[in-house]
Amino acid sequence: MTKTTQIICGIDPGLRQTGYGVICVDADDDSARVLDAGIIRTSDDAPLAVRLAELAAGIEEVLDEHRVELLSVEQVYSHYNRPRTAILMAHARGVILSGAARRGIQVLHLPATTVKRHLTGNGRAGKEQIQKAVAALLGLPTVPQPPDVADALAIALCATAMLQQPAKLAMTNDALLSPRGAR
Amino acid sequence: MTKTTQIICGIDPGLRQTGYGVICVDADDDSARVLDAGIIRTSDDAPLAVRLAELAAGIEEVLDEHRVELLSVEQVYSHYNRPRTAILMAHARGVILSGAARRGIQVLHLPATTVKRHLTGNGRAGKEQIQKAVAALLGLPTVPQPPDVADALAIALCATAMLQQPAKLAMTNDALLSPRGAR
Repeated sequence: MTKTTQIICGIDPGLRQTGYGVICVDADDDSARVLDAGIIRTSDDAPLAVRLAELAAGIEEVLDEHRVELLSVEQVYSHYNRPRTAILMAHARGVILSGAARRGIQVLHLPATTVKRHLTGNGRAGKEQIQKAVAALLGLPTVPQPPDVADALAIALCATAMLQQPAKLAMTNDALLSPRGAR
Repeated sequence: MTKTTQIICGIDPGLRQTGYGVICVDADDDSARVLDAGIIRTSDDAPLAVRLAELAAGIEEVLDEHRVELLSVEQVYSHYNRPRTAILMAHARGVILSGAARRGIQVLHLPATTVKRHLTGNGRAGKEQIQKAVAALLGLPTVPQPPDVADALAIALCATAMLQQPAKLAMTNDALLSPRGAR
């Protein structure tokens, strides 16, 4: 029998808190169900290196526990209004990406606007719209809280759609987007 | 007998190539000698996540082989002329810092200008000046090549000086500098 399910983990990365959402997708009917979702928090008062080690341990636990096969992360923009935040987030992303690649897990980088458009039809959808769309698509009784968890699940759901469109998939290999490349 | 030596690793971080220099410092006479120095290169054509995994494996091998006790890394600026480069470098830094913290290794973040001034008296010294100063301080027969290796050894040497000045040491806990904070 051919295996028809795939375990996908979506990540909304951040140094202070990183949202994750693990889903199991059935290729036969494209149905998806949530296996796990939550937030990895790091110690506010710890040095940066220690916080990154906490994040690494948290992510690796999720990847190993659910035998994740594909990791999908929000793409980063190379121009930000807040360079400090962008650089700290890039430190967090480094830890997450490296943890996945060391396990042989494929990584997709998806622009936030692509994820939002896929779920709601609107690339500028608000947090509440994303939460509602995620709850509807995954048959959840309530909207995922906090919004970071909904975002992570949205990124995982969008990745499953990308996998079915190899032409679009090729665009997800670059981890950085310039503002003009953003769509 | 009290232990009087300390193993310090200096790092000049980069995604394409990361310079490292491991020195052994004797507290009795402040003498330092090189244990190991080199470059960790990542595969140009590999996806970002795979390159970060290569870097992580390379750094961890150095930390473990020499039982490094203190890691010293160039501090990052939150304002850059090249945001793309800064963000990719921050991914690399994340992997390096996390690898050290997971081993319980203390991490110092040193501004490039502090390192240059410590070695040459000039915070804007060129690469060649740094190479010559490093060779002189460590009694090397030739200057370290490429400059990234000299920079890494310079960062390790500056860390040893910082350790002897607790007042200055407190400033090295923040991993990010704004341009006005740079000195």
